[in-house]
Order: sequence, then C-alpha cells, then structure tokens
Amino acid sequence: MNDVWEYYRGELVAVEDQIRQNLDSKVALVNTVAAHILNSGGKRIRPLLLILSARAGGYTGRDDVLLASLIEYIHTATLLHDDVVDHAELRRGRKTANGLWGNQVAILVGDYLYSKAICHIVGFRSQDVNECLSEACRKMAEGELMQLSYKDDASITEREYLKIVEHKTGSLIAAACRMGAVVADADPVLRDALFQFGQAIGVAFQVADDTLDYAAPRALLGKSLGKDLGEGQATLPLLHLRKHCTDEEQARLAEVMKTKPDGNGELAWVRSLMERYGSIDYAMDRARGFVQAAKAHLDLLEDSVHKRALQVVADYMVSRDH
Amino acid sequence: MNDVWEYYRGELVAVEDQIRQNLDSKVALVNTVAAHILNSGGKRIRPLLLILSARAGGYTGRDDVLLASLIEYIHTATLLHDDVVDHAELRRGRKTANGLWGNQVAILVGDYLYSKAICHIVGFRSQDVNECLSEACRKMAEGELMQLSYKDDASITEREYLKIVEHKTGSLIAAACRMGAVVADADPVLRDALFQFGQAIGVAFQVADDTLDYAAPRALLGKSLGKDLGEGQATLPLLHLRKHCTDEEQARLAEVMKTKPDGNGELAWVRSLMERYGSIDYAMDRARGFVQAAKAHLDLLEDSVHKRALQVVADYMVSRDH
Repeated sequence: MNDVWEYYRGELVAVEDQIRQNLDSKVALVNTVAAHILNSGGKRIRPLLLILSARAGGYTGRDDVLLASLIEYIHTATLLHDDVVDHAELRRGRKTANGLWGNQVAILVGDYLYSKAICHIVGFRSQDVNECLSEACRKMAEGELMQLSYKDDASITEREYLKIVEHKTGSLIAAACRMGAVVADADPVLRDALFQFGQAIGVAFQVADDTLDYAAPRALLGKSLGKDLGEGQATLPLLHLRKHCTDEEQARLAEVMKTKPDGNGELAWVRSLMERYGSIDYAMDRARGFVQAAKAHLDLLEDSVHKRALQVVADYMVSRDH
Repeated sequence: MNDVWEYYRGELVAVEDQIRQNLDSKVALVNTVAAHILNSGGKRIRPLLLILSARAGGYTGRDDVLLASLIEYIHTATLLHDDVVDHAELRRGRKTANGLWGNQVAILVGDYLYSKAICHIVGFRSQDVNECLSEACRKMAEGELMQLSYKDDASITEREYLKIVEHKTGSLIAAACRMGAVVADADPVLRDALFQFGQAIGVAFQVADDTLDYAAPRALLGKSLGKDLGEGQATLPLLHLRKHCTDEEQARLAEVMKTKPDGNGELAWVRSLMERYGSIDYAMDRARGFVQAAKAHLDLLEDSVHKRALQVVADYMVSRDH
C-alpha cells in the first residue's frame, strides 16, 4: 500500500490543495472549524479510490482531483455529525470539533460542508454524478438511523447488520468509485462494476473495523476497544458469538450488553469467548470474502497500474493498519 | 390572506399528499420522526410561494406541487437542526424531535430529509433548480454560523445583521420563488425578479419576527418573548436602541446581555427603552420597506390572480399573525 500512496502522491497533494482552496467562506469560524477536521489526519481513501477509478477507466484529465476533494467534504460532514451523535471527544487522538467548539458549531459546519460540496458537484452538470452522490448521502443517513433503531436490540440478524454497513459505509465509497468511472466517461456496465467494487470494499472495511474493535491490540487503534459493546451495538463477531455460545453464556452476554460495561473484565470475558468460538476469525473471513467479491468486479478493466492499485487498496481495507 | 389559503386549497392539499407520499423509508423511525415534525403545524409558506410563482409565470402543470413538497423537506431539515442547536424543547407548542427522541435522531433525520429532497430534486434534471437550491442550502448553513460568530458581540452592525438574515431566512424563500419561475420556464429576467422578490420578503419576515420577539403580546407567539436577548443575539430593534440610547443605558444594556436574564424585569426595562426610542417602530418600518422593495420586483409580471396573491403574501410576512 505504501507504493500506492507514493505512486499517486502528486494527485493526492493536488487533492489537498483543492481541499484548502474550497475553504473560501467569508465566515472565519467556518474555515477554522472545517480546516481542523479536514486536517485531522484522514487517509483520503475515498479521494484515492475516485482517482484510481478514473485512471483505471483511461482518464487523464484533472476533474477527478476536484471531485475527489468534494467527496472528502461529504465524508468530513458525516464525521462531524457522527461525532456529535456519538458524543465523541477524540478523533485520531485530537479533540473533536464538537469537543472544541460545541455541538452547535459541529452540526452547522457539517451542514455547510455538505451543501458546499453539493454546490460544486452540480457545477459538473453530470446527471449520473448528481444521482449517485445524493443517493449515497440519503443511504448514509438512513444507515445511521437503522443502526440507532437496532440499538440494544438483541434480535438483529446478520443480514440486517450487513444492510446497515452497506448503507452507512459502503454507499459513499461506491459513489466515489462510480464517480471516477463517470469522469472517465466509462460505459454503463463499467460504471456499475466500479460501483459494486466500491460498495463491497466499503462493507469489507466496516466489517473489519467492527471486528478489530474486539480483536486489535489496544495500542493499534486510536479509539478504545469494545466501543460497540459499550454502546449496545451488535456487530458481526458478536452476532456470530450469540449464535454459537451456550444458553448460559448468551444470558450473561445479554446482561453485559444491557449494563454497558466500562470495566475491562467483562470485555476480556467477551473477547475470550469470541476466541473460543472462532467469532473473530469468522468475521474477518467474511470481510476478506467481500474483498474477493469486490475484486471480481474489476475483471472488466484492462490490466494497468491503476487496476493493480485498486486491488491493493481492496486488500488494505481489511488489513490491521487501515 | 385567508382568501389566498382558500383559493389555493386544492394545491396545498396536493402538497400535503406529496409530503406524506415521499416518506417511504423502510426504517420506521425515519418516517415516525419526519412525520412528527412535518405535521407540526407549519404554514407551508415556502410551498405556497413556489406554487404562486409558477402560476404567476403561466404554469398549469403539476411539477410545482412535487417541488413544493421538497422545499418543505429542506425547510424541515433546517428546523430539526436548529432545534438541536438552540436546545429547543417546544416548537409551536409541541415537543421538538430532539426533546422526544434525542439529538442523535434529530440530527440524522435532518440529514435524511435534506438528502432525500436532493435525490428527488436532481431527478428534475434542471441545472437552474440544482444550482439555486444547493446555493440556498449553503447560505442557510453559513448564515447560522455567522449568527453564532456574532453571539455576545456588541460590535455587530445593521449591515451585518441584515446579511445574516438574508442568508439564514431569505435564501430558501428566494430559491422557492425562483424554482416556481423555472418550472414555468420563465425567462432569466423574470427568474431573477422572483428570486429577488423571495429574498426581500424573507428578510422582511425575519426582521419582523425578530422585532415581535420584543413587541408582541406574549399570548400571540408560541415562544417566550425576549428569546434573542436571553441568547445574546442582537437583532434590529436592539441595534437601533444601542445607537440611540444614552451611554449609561448602553452600559446597563451590555450588562443585561451578558448576564442573559431569565427574569422579566430586565426584559420589561429593555422593552420600555425600545418604546421610548422608537426602536420597535424603526425595525417594523424597515421590515415593511423590504416588503415594498419586494413588490417592485413583481412589476414584470402580467396582472393575474396569482400576482395579486404574491402581493398579499408579501404583506402577510410582516403582519403580527404570520
């Protein structure tokens, strides 16, 4: 993956320039807050995927860089709102915007970044881009609300969990890849293939992320482990565990979920159960399965350095250092 | 104004049907929360203005009804976020969405309604509509942030106050009127004229609303009086008062703003000062001035029942029962 970051360094620097350039509000507060969150160390995976998709489709112009910066604006808007919704105080080790300036500012700067991005996007006059991006935004909000609906609900199925993940994480990555294909003026079949590719790696990423919440060595992740458990969110490893453990263990598990443990004793117990029943392995296998399915959608593309980069990014989505 | 509501009752009923029809999320929570706020007794002034603008431009089809329902979605999304930002517990006498379901749900349903509206809007394939609506949304968010920036700031000028008002309230009403003109396939000059008309009556409405916050008999308004004062927001009557009162009064005024009074003693004092210096009359005159300026933009329109209805709505924007 380091080779990929290196190879596209020029494009990614151009994306950073574009991100800064778009921050041209006359209201100083807007620029300050937006710059804080936009410079908080995000990997720019969506911009990279958009650019790779465009290049893999044969595009050699510069429009992909502007679109890439705008998809990062949309992503950033969702982060601002997510941090308010989750009462998060830290993001990648730095104070969140809501922590520094309050919920009001975080909500409104999120609204601003989102609508600012839409303003630029409609300037492209591409019906396909307009449709796929607005649809992605609708699905992201719907996915977050689905997740809230299922909070503390023990009956959620794997199918429902995957639907949430596809909505809240898959949809914007899918849109990024499709937008790349649109910029490259790819035919409808290739546009769909890149959309499906993006959706599948997005799902893979979220499933892996949810699984690492139980499995990763604490030092590797910026957030504390067991976050989902503490918030009453059932993710894939927990769904697997519930299905395979004894009735007695299930009862205690339900108790642990209900009391939202802060202590590490209960979390260690849940992790040891997951170890025993193979729940972590199961969930990571599922994540890797989505990566394989994603790669199959690339078969349509002619071989190129860009296509190989897309494959590398796909694998990276489920690696421990993503 | 009652005659106007009555004359366009068929269209407004169709807007209500459309609003309900669009609430088709598979997530029950989304529909419940959205229905709560959408049915909270809004006057549908933006939908009405869009329809009147379309009809005044000679339109006889049905697209205006769908667009009218979508502009109400956008407006509703901003209300949801505003109520979170203002920690509001009541809206028009009913509990707010954030009061009933929490900030998380209110923020996300706001995001959902906004992106849902954009999804439908791009389906119209009108570049003009896409541009004017996304621009309006950007300006609304920017306006709210400007207002936050000036909170507790004694140096805000009338010009800056009016800029905020134009952004946060004028822009969506302007977009509603312009969208009506676009549906009617009006020429660019008429589109601009209706945009300017909407912007001016939007500013008039907000200035009047801010003034009634000090002047209206308590029973007439659903919210408590003196809200802006308590929140450290300087609006037009206060700006006028500051400019004309004695240094001593100014000092005490600054003190009152800083301590954010809950009691009515200070508010009564401020109101009596405004009475004495004519600040209420000044601000209401300004509001009526914007209505007159707005009406001048209608000169381009041929005379019709719809044009007369637009004039009636313009006057209604600054009436005490708006």
